[in-house]
Amino acid sequence: MFDWQQATSEQRSECLSRPAVKVGDKVKAAVEKIIDNVARNGDTALLSYAEQFDARVSPRIRVTGTELIESEFALAPELKSAIDQAYSNIKKFHQLQLPQSKKIETQSGVTCELRYQAIEAVGLYVPGGSAPLPSSVLMQGVCAQLSGAKTIVLATPVKGDCQIHPAILYAAKLCGVTDVIECGGAGAIAAMALGTNSVPKVNKIFGPGNSFVTMAKQLLSQSVPGLAIDMPAGPSEVLVIADKGANPEFIAADLLSQAEHGEDSQVILLASDSQLIEETEAAIERQLSKLSRADIARAALKNSTLILVESIEQAFEISAEYGPEHLILQIRDAERFLPLVKNAGSVFVGDYTPESAGDYASGTNHVLPTYGYSKTYSSLNLMDFYKAYTVQSITKEGLSKLSTAILPLAQAEGLDAHANAVKVRLENNND
Amino acid sequence: MFDWQQATSEQRSECLSRPAVKVGDKVKAAVEKIIDNVARNGDTALLSYAEQFDARVSPRIRVTGTELIESEFALAPELKSAIDQAYSNIKKFHQLQLPQSKKIETQSGVTCELRYQAIEAVGLYVPGGSAPLPSSVLMQGVCAQLSGAKTIVLATPVKGDCQIHPAILYAAKLCGVTDVIECGGAGAIAAMALGTNSVPKVNKIFGPGNSFVTMAKQLLSQSVPGLAIDMPAGPSEVLVIADKGANPEFIAADLLSQAEHGEDSQVILLASDSQLIEETEAAIERQLSKLSRADIARAALKNSTLILVESIEQAFEISAEYGPEHLILQIRDAERFLPLVKNAGSVFVGDYTPESAGDYASGTNHVLPTYGYSKTYSSLNLMDFYKAYTVQSITKEGLSKLSTAILPLAQAEGLDAHANAVKVRLENNND
Repeated sequence: MFDWQQATSEQRSECLSRPAVKVGDKVKAAVEKIIDNVARNGDTALLSYAEQFDARVSPRIRVTGTELIESEFALAPELKSAIDQAYSNIKKFHQLQLPQSKKIETQSGVTCELRYQAIEAVGLYVPGGSAPLPSSVLMQGVCAQLSGAKTIVLATPVKGDCQIHPAILYAAKLCGVTDVIECGGAGAIAAMALGTNSVPKVNKIFGPGNSFVTMAKQLLSQSVPGLAIDMPAGPSEVLVIADKGANPEFIAADLLSQAEHGEDSQVILLASDSQLIEETEAAIERQLSKLSRADIARAALKNSTLILVESIEQAFEISAEYGPEHLILQIRDAERFLPLVKNAGSVFVGDYTPESAGDYASGTNHVLPTYGYSKTYSSLNLMDFYKAYTVQSITKEGLSKLSTAILPLAQAEGLDAHANAVKVRLENNND
Repeated sequence: MFDWQQATSEQRSECLSRPAVKVGDKVKAAVEKIIDNVARNGDTALLSYAEQFDARVSPRIRVTGTELIESEFALAPELKSAIDQAYSNIKKFHQLQLPQSKKIETQSGVTCELRYQAIEAVGLYVPGGSAPLPSSVLMQGVCAQLSGAKTIVLATPVKGDCQIHPAILYAAKLCGVTDVIECGGAGAIAAMALGTNSVPKVNKIFGPGNSFVTMAKQLLSQSVPGLAIDMPAGPSEVLVIADKGANPEFIAADLLSQAEHGEDSQVILLASDSQLIEETEAAIERQLSKLSRADIARAALKNSTLILVESIEQAFEISAEYGPEHLILQIRDAERFLPLVKNAGSVFVGDYTPESAGDYASGTNHVLPTYGYSKTYSSLNLMDFYKAYTVQSITKEGLSKLSTAILPLAQAEGLDAHANAVKVRLENNND
């Protein structure tokens, strides 16, 4: 237990410091080589990486349409309907976010409009690893589908002689994914950024991944004109604020569900009651023993702290400073504290709102800014799949009235030709 | 004149290629040194750079409040009212964009909301150079003001023994800028990113600048947790689509008002009539001779092409491929072609809508994605000064119904503790 009141300001910032993310120059050099190889050799390079990194027995690039269509028959009915339910909720929530253009006559004869257009081709990355991640497909795929993107590429690695999991394919099918690429890692990112014979070139790449994937996204977004990526990636984290009435078992379960994500996850509890903290510590130990990923969770708990605060208000101040990815409020009448929330990616209000609800199925997006980026970055939302642009239309009379603003400003900025583009129009007719 | 129909596909892509932007390793090394110095020595470093790079006689960091208040009396009345008029139009257009939170019950007992919060502290950069740029203050400052950002820092360099121009100060005052920093370059960017005794630390940095400024924004956004920047920067560009009825003098004036921005500017005309192109060439020569920045414009014209197309529809296809920052439509009944617009930062519709209207005063923002980034990035808009986050609130009954989605997905993904956070709540009460 860390007693906030008794701590020096150095101890306080040490206690909230995040595990350092160090990506070595070796990762960068390796990824540069992969990008270069994909740029030169396209599909051939991709296939060789599938052999090299994923030990694929007979590597291939594209999943067939038949497999996509038939995926639902290979799924346990319970899992199929879970995916259907999650898809429906996520779609409902993101549908609310469909952008609407905005138009105004700012002054007589001068009409300005903000319009939105879907990004035409998007690439979604879904990491492999020990288990399939259909939720990651849904969170990215629903947005892409709602935006009306023409091309939706999904890339995911498959190991050895395994098949791509039907849960991934079924989620992809629901979301209208147009191309499923059975390759992963930096090579797949490069293929989507640059295009190959089998992989369509996309304008923006979304999705989490290991340090190679993250590095590839970064390097390519800096070197391919027009290419964008979703947001900076970092280890996952949760901060729970709990008052005296909270249930230590619930708190422990939330902290552990974050901790099991990875050894670099960070979990923080801010509680105003020392007994609650002690009981939570005990509950963590009890629950840990039953978890299949106990080792990972235990390692993550080393980056983590249970902090005793003076008041719930102080807890919100500390949380704002930290800027957590997930913020869970196990507080009586938690709604009334929402005005105190600052810098959080997603907020879970009340005792019965665990993070795993938002991770999977409530409807909110689980792609969130982490590592303090909640101070500036948004939770993934539908706007990330659009670009906004402006349209303006001015009449001759409108331009004449506007010239009293344009001409002195152009003159002050020393831009003659800017002024001239107005003058030549006012002095001539083209009707 | 470049005849699109007669050209090979290689010649076509050559003709639309952008001037290469090469930022040498020297710039990177120099900027890294500046960032390091500001991190260590704060204000002292800033002051030394003002002496070194701007030849400041008695360098200082902060502009006084009195100077800000009194700036309007130092302004020519015509320029003051031009700034007022531009401010009013820009504010009207951006006010339309104030975000509204969106809430829905995705299924019974499961409420999800998307909320918006202003980014708390923002930094606006306004380059120096041969003339003051009050329009750059307005375009960034109005957004910051409307968002309700608490801290709005403006940094701009001043040369030798000059005073900061009253037009800059007056625009800053209108926009509610809280801190005016009389320093520029990479040092000023570092000061805003890291904070010094005199310069508040900000969360996001906006604004154009030279290669040092751009490099500093890039490097700092990659190294300071939580820090964001506005968008990738590149040379400015315009593409004009004109039909037979267009006025060559108007076209020439628009091309030149882009070309005078800088030697690396690019201007392109797509016209369906060869005579119009010839007349435009002649008009460019005539108008050039009268411009104070004729040398710059002439250099920029070297990166530029007047292209003969087969049809207006083909012109829109070429424009979509190029993705111009500014797109001007000098076409009869231009409105009816708007559905063909793809990948443009800002569109200027009809003969009496010059780019300079949007650069200064119509109301739209002049900070736009360039260098092909209009395929994925937005015109600067109010949302760039906010972050979106989600809030969810679930009842016990809601969680029970949602568990049919959460539990099978958590199981499929091998995340026990995620499932446990639901089970522990359904098996226990905390009411």
